[in-house]
This record gives sequence, structure tokens and C-alpha cells, in this order.
Amino acid sequence: MTMTDKNTNIYREIFQGLLPENRLHFEGEALSDNSVDETEGLSFMPRVVAEPVSVEEVSVLVKAANDNKVPVTAAGARTGLSGGALPVHGGLALSMRKMNKIIKIDEKNHQAIVEPGVITEVLQNAVEEKNLFYAVDPSSKGTCTIGGNLAENSGGPRAVKYGVTKDWVLNLQVVLADGQIIETGANTLKNSTGYNLTGLMVGSEGTLGIITRATLKLLPLPRFHALMWVPFKSISDACKTVSEIFQAGAMPSAVELMERDALVMAQDYTGNHDLTLGEEDGAYLLIEVDGFQEAELMPQCERILPVLERNNGGEVLFAQTAAEQEKLWYLRRRIGEAVKAVSIYKEEDTVVPRGYLPELMEVVKRVGREYGFRTVCYGHAGDGNLHINILRDEMSEEVWSEKIPEAIREIFKNVVELGGTLSGEHGIGYVQKEYMDIVLSPHNILIQRGIKKVMDPKNIMNPGKIFPQLPHDEM
Amino acid sequence: MTMTDKNTNIYREIFQGLLPENRLHFEGEALSDNSVDETEGLSFMPRVVAEPVSVEEVSVLVKAANDNKVPVTAAGARTGLSGGALPVHGGLALSMRKMNKIIKIDEKNHQAIVEPGVITEVLQNAVEEKNLFYAVDPSSKGTCTIGGNLAENSGGPRAVKYGVTKDWVLNLQVVLADGQIIETGANTLKNSTGYNLTGLMVGSEGTLGIITRATLKLLPLPRFHALMWVPFKSISDACKTVSEIFQAGAMPSAVELMERDALVMAQDYTGNHDLTLGEEDGAYLLIEVDGFQEAELMPQCERILPVLERNNGGEVLFAQTAAEQEKLWYLRRRIGEAVKAVSIYKEEDTVVPRGYLPELMEVVKRVGREYGFRTVCYGHAGDGNLHINILRDEMSEEVWSEKIPEAIREIFKNVVELGGTLSGEHGIGYVQKEYMDIVLSPHNILIQRGIKKVMDPKNIMNPGKIFPQLPHDEM
Repeated sequence: MTMTDKNTNIYREIFQGLLPENRLHFEGEALSDNSVDETEGLSFMPRVVAEPVSVEEVSVLVKAANDNKVPVTAAGARTGLSGGALPVHGGLALSMRKMNKIIKIDEKNHQAIVEPGVITEVLQNAVEEKNLFYAVDPSSKGTCTIGGNLAENSGGPRAVKYGVTKDWVLNLQVVLADGQIIETGANTLKNSTGYNLTGLMVGSEGTLGIITRATLKLLPLPRFHALMWVPFKSISDACKTVSEIFQAGAMPSAVELMERDALVMAQDYTGNHDLTLGEEDGAYLLIEVDGFQEAELMPQCERILPVLERNNGGEVLFAQTAAEQEKLWYLRRRIGEAVKAVSIYKEEDTVVPRGYLPELMEVVKRVGREYGFRTVCYGHAGDGNLHINILRDEMSEEVWSEKIPEAIREIFKNVVELGGTLSGEHGIGYVQKEYMDIVLSPHNILIQRGIKKVMDPKNIMNPGKIFPQLPHDEM
Repeated sequence: MTMTDKNTNIYREIFQGLLPENRLHFEGEALSDNSVDETEGLSFMPRVVAEPVSVEEVSVLVKAANDNKVPVTAAGARTGLSGGALPVHGGLALSMRKMNKIIKIDEKNHQAIVEPGVITEVLQNAVEEKNLFYAVDPSSKGTCTIGGNLAENSGGPRAVKYGVTKDWVLNLQVVLADGQIIETGANTLKNSTGYNLTGLMVGSEGTLGIITRATLKLLPLPRFHALMWVPFKSISDACKTVSEIFQAGAMPSAVELMERDALVMAQDYTGNHDLTLGEEDGAYLLIEVDGFQEAELMPQCERILPVLERNNGGEVLFAQTAAEQEKLWYLRRRIGEAVKAVSIYKEEDTVVPRGYLPELMEVVKRVGREYGFRTVCYGHAGDGNLHINILRDEMSEEVWSEKIPEAIREIFKNVVELGGTLSGEHGIGYVQKEYMDIVLSPHNILIQRGIKKVMDPKNIMNPGKIFPQLPHDEM
């Protein structure tokens, strides 16, 4: 009997019978399916995959894992970009996809109560039918789940006006490491009753507990949108424009930045070349304003247009119809996949105060020149949140795996000096944890690890994530 | 030598020399000043009062306290209503009032960096001069401090559109119990880098650390406001109106409810009887909408007016000028003090999903009838957050101190059944902690106490607050 077989038997002993056989897998495709997420080039096999359909099942599974010190890694649609859903220490992969009910859309209280496996766009569409609005819209909204969004504190283009996932969560039901089920808060808009455990859970990447239900806030639906597409010759001008838009008193619902290369890649990837790119264009801004009445849009655009002109923006394309708007958004949302199709790459999710975007771009390009790599940058400029894609192109394995982490460290050091941090919306997960010392003091990390220990004394909840490994760590 | 003298000497030994003499008090008025906040009928003398002016001074003081197991209770303007700033175990009262600098108003990044002793309204006015907006506006905004707002996660009328204090905080500098200084986050609009310690600190009522600096988010200033004053014969109709306003797709910047008695008291207290109250009025709504352009206001009002009519609202008074509007707001803001002037009272800060306001009012009035007390209710109805004032009137001491807590418990039990919780914006502090078992499971409280222990192992940070006392608690 090989080691693997023996270990599989151990997992069978622990988990068999806790779920029906068709939702509990000890071998086969389910295991390899759950060994990856969208983070490039990483794969870790779990030893068992469970697909619970209720909080009670989650509780029983987690308790069994805890009793036997088996790592538990929860996942939704595995669209994450920081490796948060990778079972890096094997163990139990908890697929939350079958807990995908919208339990209630409460029109009277403007709340939705959902299970974590609900796809973000499915929820958006369901509440829109009732004239309500769930604003969080990661680019992967068509596939990602609310549970994943909660785990990573996901954002998206509209975060600039409406905030990120944490700003939409009122209350959570959570299964703790010992199988206990708690509510973190109340279904209220305000809550000053003890510590904000709800806020602590959001963005904790599955390391503190398993979210099994969420009460989310909804707003009346802003039905009207104006979308402007603006070319700039220099990316520096485009970056500088961003904070000036807000200084002019505008409150856009999205301000997205794309380098020319990012757009070219998206056009090639989608095969859609409708948009003619000017010879000398270096970067583009995609600026959206929204409102409850059409009449609210133009005054906002009028505040923005002089800012564009002042910063050498080119001819503004107004996307008039919903279809035209969706075409531009579609291109923007496909950039991530398009870059992936071009080269092996590493994506950094840098965020700085938005006024320092020009400085951020300068740093990225300077470090790229020094280390000899190409970057493609795009993202949520209105939030100061840029996705920096470092392309491997023809780089040797040695340079890629040894030199590039140094370069990333240098970029992050500069980001922190600008008042920024490592991740705006992707999380630290597995791939960024070795950079945490740049932004968090040892004492801060000590506190965070202490909190982790209170909630997960045996370190079974998604071990090997967020925090740099310590010599005495068991996992 | 009396016990008191002896103890004072101990405190002198620990703290003397850590601050200049004029900012370190072992006796006299400073002690009695710091023995109270705005919570009715409670006073606890500290043994020493310190007035630090820098984070370094705070660190040195807290470290000395920790080394000697001396309780530390920080306070701002002591306007709190839950006893959060009361030094219930004596020890060191840390007055943060002298750390009152607005360090920077960063127009480029729409951020303000402030010390905790800054008065909320002073910050609001300072940013308004630069066309910027800090929305959090507790009724005590003219006296309360940002530090107090952070400690209690304060709200105010505009929270319904703009959120509470936690929604405006990007980053905090905190002195931990052992004197270590940490930053909780980064000066960015988004942050998915480790646990949300910023969110954990806000609303933790000084029990996890001392906030010494805050980076706050600002928005462009909405310059235009329309204010509607609406009488209702029945409070039930007024309550029912509230959620319907939002269901109609309106996004008001305030929806305040006042029972008639509350308003009569405010008129008597301020001597301002300009507003004629109809004979049969039972309650009033004060509804504000705001915008960046005057033209944005009327469409919003037009969405609200049919809702008022449908729910038997009386003649709507439109306050046209800023002066007329301020007059109505002034009356609203004085209600708290006015009630205080009428009778000894207990104030509960109940919050429910706003659609359940009618049920909340029914419960309060029913319990009042059963226990034989009068209530005056008012507050932030748009958030489902009502301040329930239980008046003592002619009640015997026995009934007041023994029966009324039972009545409050019954109200809270019903609040929790409605999906609500104990406090929307005042915090749990000293006076609500014995009700925490109604809303938080023992396991939830265990987790919260565990977090407290990680950050404050010797339990020196504002001990005796938030959590029900346990038999083995030292303090």
C-alpha cells in the first residue's frame, strides 16, 4: 500500500458517512478540480472534497476536521487571484457551490439573505428585477460567488462610489473551527453592540471560519448610466486626471484605467476590434456616472469634461445605449483573461491613495526597466487600485522565480511609502504572504495571528495563507 | 494615612514624571470632571488624570499602566450615553482632548488625518471650507470628538445615506495595551491585506487600544438640501412611512422620527415655539434630501410626497432657507437634553430592520403599559434606530432599579426577534452590558473576549465594559 492510499484511508475514516456519497469525494476529478483557482501556475491536491448543502453539514464536517487536525479550505467558484482557495496543505476542500440559494430578497427592509454559493451576477439580476441594487461587481461577476467575494473583500469598478464587499454586509452566519455556529451581528444598518465580528470575517480569506449565510444591504436601483471613453497620449496624464475628477466635485460610479497594451490584448482575445485605437494613444479612462433620473447624468459629465480637456484627454466617446456601454465594459472585464492568454504573468493588486497614481505608475515602469520586464497595467483607478501584470515573456525560469520577487518587493516598498498597501481587492492568500512584512509591523502581525489562534486554535482553517510562515508553525 | 491617600501615593509612584505636572492630576477638579459622561446618574472617580499631547506620551502612560495593572479609560468630550468613558474601576483616566490637531486635509486624495480630540463639527467645518464633506454628524457634534465617535461607532441623522463612523475610517494609529504603536491599515479606499483591524478597533469602546490618529475619507460636498417636516396623527403611520420612502426609490440623507412629547419637551427646553403643533399630531418625520445641484432635490421630494400622502401624513412644511432648516435641526438635536431636563430617565438605543419600526413602537408602548412607565421615542428612523427614553417620573426607587431592567430586557428580547440589536450607535459601554446575553450567543461572547485577551492580556483597557462580568474576572 502506498503512502497516498494509506492517507486516503485515513480521510475516509474521518469523513465517510458525514455526507451522502455523491457529495463526498476521495478521488477522481473532484480532487483535481479543487486543486486550482485562477491564480497562475499553482496546484495543490486536496485529499477529500465535500459539497455540503446546509450549515449543519458544514458544522459536522468542520468539527470532524478539527477533531482530527485536518486542514479545511473553503472555495466558491475558485476565480480568486491570490491563491486563497488553494488547499496548500491538502486536507479537506470544502466546495460551497451547492449552497447557492437566495434565501430571501426583503423588499421592505432592502436586504438580501443569501447562501455563499450564489453567483454574484445572479444576485444582482434577481434584485434588479425588484428595482433594487447590489453594487459589488468584480470583473468575474458572472462566475464568482458571494462567499468568495466575502472571503477576499472583493471590489470591482463601482467600488469607487459604492464601496467594496464589506460595505454591503450586515450580518453573517459562520461555522467556527470547532463546528460552533454563530451570527456575527444583526440584520440592521447600524450596530454598536460589541466588536465588529462581521467586519473581521470579511476579507479573512477563510482563515477564521466558514461563512454559511450572509445578510446583504441593498439600495434603490440607479437606472441611468452615462459612459465616457477617453484616450490619453500619456499614461501619466491619464493617472493625473483621476484624482482631479473627484476634486472637481464629481462622484462617478466607475473610473477605470487601461494601458494601451491591455486593451490591444483584450481586443485580440475577444476578436472585437470595433474600437479604433489612435496611433499615439498610451492609455484610456473609462468613466461612468449613474443616477435615478436621466437628468442627473449630464451635470455630472459636465463637471468631468473640463478635467479631461485640461489633462490632454483626446476625443471623448459617449456610449449612449446600454448595448454600447456593455461592449466597452465587456472589453474591460476581459483584460485579465486576455493577459493570461499572452504570457505567463504575475498579477499584483497594488493600491495607493488615488492622487498618487502617477507616482505608482512611475515606480512600476522604473522597476520594470531595471529588472527587464514588461508590465501591463489596468484597473480601478478611481480607488487608486491598479492591477500590475508582470509578463514573463521570454524570461528564464531562474530570473522569473528569483529576480522577479525582488522586483515585486521593491514595487511594494514604494507603494507603502505612498501610503498604499499590497492588495486592494484580491487578498493576500498564498502568493502575497511573503510580502506582508513590508506593510505590517511585526507587532501588527502578532495581533492578527493571535486573533487567528482565538478563533482557530488548531490552525485548521485555510492554513498557509495571509501570514508569512514562522519557523515553529506546524502548517 | 487613609486608604485613599495611600493609593494616591501608589499612582504618583507609577505615573509622576511621565507628563509635565500641569497635564497630570492626582487630585482636584480634573478627577471629578473625568468621573462622569452624559450617561445619567453615574459617577466613578479615577485615581489619576493624564492629558497627553502625543502618541509617544500615550504610549509611555499606557505602558506604565500595563506594567502595574492599572486600568486605563480613555475619553474625549465625555458626551457618551452608554457610560463607555466612565473609569468604573478607577485607575488612569486618559483625556484625549489636548490631542486635537487636524494634521492634514488632503484635497488631492480626499482624506483628512486627525488626532482623536478634534471636535466633530470643527472637522466638518474645516473640510467644508475646501468643498469637502465629512458626513458623520451625531447630535452632539458641536462638543463630541472624533475619538469618541470612533470608540462608539457613532452615527447621526445622515448615516441613513452616508453610513456611520466605521464607513469613513481608512486607517488608525493605535497604542496597544503594552505601549506598542501600530497602524491598523493603509491610507487607501480599498484594503484586502490581512484582517480588518481598522474595523475591529472602531466601536471597540477603548477596550482594545487607544486611537491616537485617524485617516478619514472625505467626499465632495453636497451643497443643496431640501428639508420636509411632516406631522402624522398616529406614530404607527409615521413608522410605516419610513420603509416605504426607500421602497419608492428615494435616497434621503435623513429620515428622523419624533414623538409629539419629544418635540414638546424640545420646544419647552429651547423656549422656541415657532412651530405650531396640531392638536391631534402624534408624531413627526423630518426628511432631508441632498444633492450637488439644486435641480437634484425636487425629483427626490416628488418620489417621497406620494408616500407621505398615502400614509395619512399631514401638511408638509418645506424649510426653504438654510436658516429655516437649521431651526428644525436645532430642535431635533436638543431633544436629548430636553428629556433629561424633564425627568430622570434611561435611554435605550434600539435598532431593527427599518421595515419593523411599527412593530418596535408597539412593543415599547405595550411594555410601558405593562410596567407602568412613560416613554418618549425619537431618532434615526431611516436606519431603524430609535432612542427609547424611559422616564422615571414619580416611580419609586425600588421599581426603577429592579422592575425597569426587567422591562428593558423584555423590549430587547423583542428587538432581537425582529432581527435587531441592543445598540445602533451609542455602544454597550457600562449600562447595557448585562443585556448582551440576549443578542450574542455564549460562543460569540467567548470569541470576543478572546480577541480582547489577545490585544489586552492584563485587561487594563477600559475594563468593566461591553461584556457581562464573569465570576472569575479580576476587574
